[in-house]
Amino acid sequence: FMNTLCIAVDAMGGDSGWQSVLPAAVMAAKCYPAIEFHLYGESFVGDEVNALMRSHKSLSNITFTPSAASVEMDESPKSALRYKRDSSMGMALQSVASGKSHGCISAGNTGALVALGMHFLKCYQGLSRPALCKVIPAIKSSSGDQSLGAKRAGGSTHSYLLDLGANVDCSAQQLQQFACLGAMLCSVLEKSNAPSVRLLNIGKEAFKGSSLIQEAAERCEKTTSLNYQGFIEADEIFQGVADVIVCDGFSGNIALKASEGAARTVMGNLRHVFSRHLFSRLLALLSQPLLRCWQDNINPDKYNGAYLLGLKGTVVKSHGGADKQQFFY
Amino acid sequence: FMNTLCIAVDAMGGDSGWQSVLPAAVMAAKCYPAIEFHLYGESFVGDEVNALMRSHKSLSNITFTPSAASVEMDESPKSALRYKRDSSMGMALQSVASGKSHGCISAGNTGALVALGMHFLKCYQGLSRPALCKVIPAIKSSSGDQSLGAKRAGGSTHSYLLDLGANVDCSAQQLQQFACLGAMLCSVLEKSNAPSVRLLNIGKEAFKGSSLIQEAAERCEKTTSLNYQGFIEADEIFQGVADVIVCDGFSGNIALKASEGAARTVMGNLRHVFSRHLFSRLLALLSQPLLRCWQDNINPDKYNGAYLLGLKGTVVKSHGGADKQQFFY
Repeated sequence: FMNTLCIAVDAMGGDSGWQSVLPAAVMAAKCYPAIEFHLYGESFVGDEVNALMRSHKSLSNITFTPSAASVEMDESPKSALRYKRDSSMGMALQSVASGKSHGCISAGNTGALVALGMHFLKCYQGLSRPALCKVIPAIKSSSGDQSLGAKRAGGSTHSYLLDLGANVDCSAQQLQQFACLGAMLCSVLEKSNAPSVRLLNIGKEAFKGSSLIQEAAERCEKTTSLNYQGFIEADEIFQGVADVIVCDGFSGNIALKASEGAARTVMGNLRHVFSRHLFSRLLALLSQPLLRCWQDNINPDKYNGAYLLGLKGTVVKSHGGADKQQFFY
Repeated sequence: FMNTLCIAVDAMGGDSGWQSVLPAAVMAAKCYPAIEFHLYGESFVGDEVNALMRSHKSLSNITFTPSAASVEMDESPKSALRYKRDSSMGMALQSVASGKSHGCISAGNTGALVALGMHFLKCYQGLSRPALCKVIPAIKSSSGDQSLGAKRAGGSTHSYLLDLGANVDCSAQQLQQFACLGAMLCSVLEKSNAPSVRLLNIGKEAFKGSSLIQEAAERCEKTTSLNYQGFIEADEIFQGVADVIVCDGFSGNIALKASEGAARTVMGNLRHVFSRHLFSRLLALLSQPLLRCWQDNINPDKYNGAYLLGLKGTVVKSHGGADKQQFFY
């Protein structure tokens, strides 16, 4: 394998496409000169890359390979799989499959990324489909000074949430598989033994929820390799009460987006209150560094990027609406 | 019907039961002397009520009727329906059914409230089950000064979200029925013509989501009385882009709890940052009234209480974990 860490980048993905990805790639290439970035995109993007390389002479760690096409954001997975194998997304995935890159990132169409990812990288044996998994922060709760996360044996202040939208309909067996995938990822990244696993449900009591979630709980309980601890409710997601939180892609996507929306709304509302009066504006000025530190702490932008877990290769999915700063993270 | 507005109160419901409900009822009775509160609870609670009445001599608008039992928070709907018809919850519902009260409120077991509510009050014709619906605030977004809600023709800054957990598994037909219920409630309460309706989904594009949500969208489109406008993603829930937001009870419960959890976490984290340093403490002191005003604006506690829509009678479900302040709201 290569000595240098190489990352394949789908330059066409996302709502703003190369216009967010290119500046983000340049920022990343400057920050991490030891990492090589292999960009894939339509040929006209190559001209932009060349122009950027001319103005940033020191950037030798970006390469560009033109692709024949790109996957549309509203294209169906089937169509992507049939017609867009040599798209920028497909080429980035092939770069991982061939061993040219250690991993790839795309802000493009999730369904297409799952379909092409399964095609080029294959799932691990026994898995029917991969799941999107994100590291979410366990923030200090308002009720106490100590975060619940920090109180846990492992001392971790992160949780792993999956699936986040790679699978809209999940079977109970898939949920149990996601639990195992999440626990494995957490074990490796956090070096934790037997990370705690919980299923997202609409109540903590054992009888709550659909028959599907009931069956998934039963399967998780029977899996001796899992440290399954029961249900978790959505208002505890950020309290670090579990290392791994498992749900179907529909609920997970909704839980994550609802939280992000609420956090952004609360932060925006605070800014609004602070800017309304002269006295408050003065306060706002004085509080600026404090608020910035606070926002840095909880900023959902920083937690952009979800692993597509279960494939034989590292694939990261960025939020489709990510701007250059978010894609950089 | 009665001249005075009468509210039946299940004094036993919720995680802290009468210990939250009684003080909340006293607060409400003082604030709204023109409203009569009919409390139902086990006989030992009657002693507490008598003691309270002695210490608050002016309170003549609270009555208490002892019940034979109370529904446990972890009791199954079936068991409640079989054994707990004369519970405090059942009696509060019967008080509405008989016309003694205009509506009732309970912080108790949601499943039992749905089951007993359907038994005593019946659903409107054609409806198979009621849905939990909550008014949620449309807060000014961070991206602009004007909230999207205020920009709408109706000028409303609220949205109606349903179902929130009365139905864990919903059919496409039920989702369409919920859309109609929500639109009717919004029409009446907001005096708005043809309120806009959207379905909660994991993407805005028409092809996104499960086959169930696809079918529900089709049904909503075909319903000419509905002003159906397509999908909405969970991060837009609080941006007032739709008057009515429809989802199954599982997703809705998760969206709401995730938002509440995120909002509380962000607010708690801000408090933490402000209290860490001396200079920040000074700032915090100065910012106190501002922050309080801000919290009053976005406080999820104030939005406690969801309508159980579709029954022939007004039933409000309070959050089970509500404290006296939240139950009062």
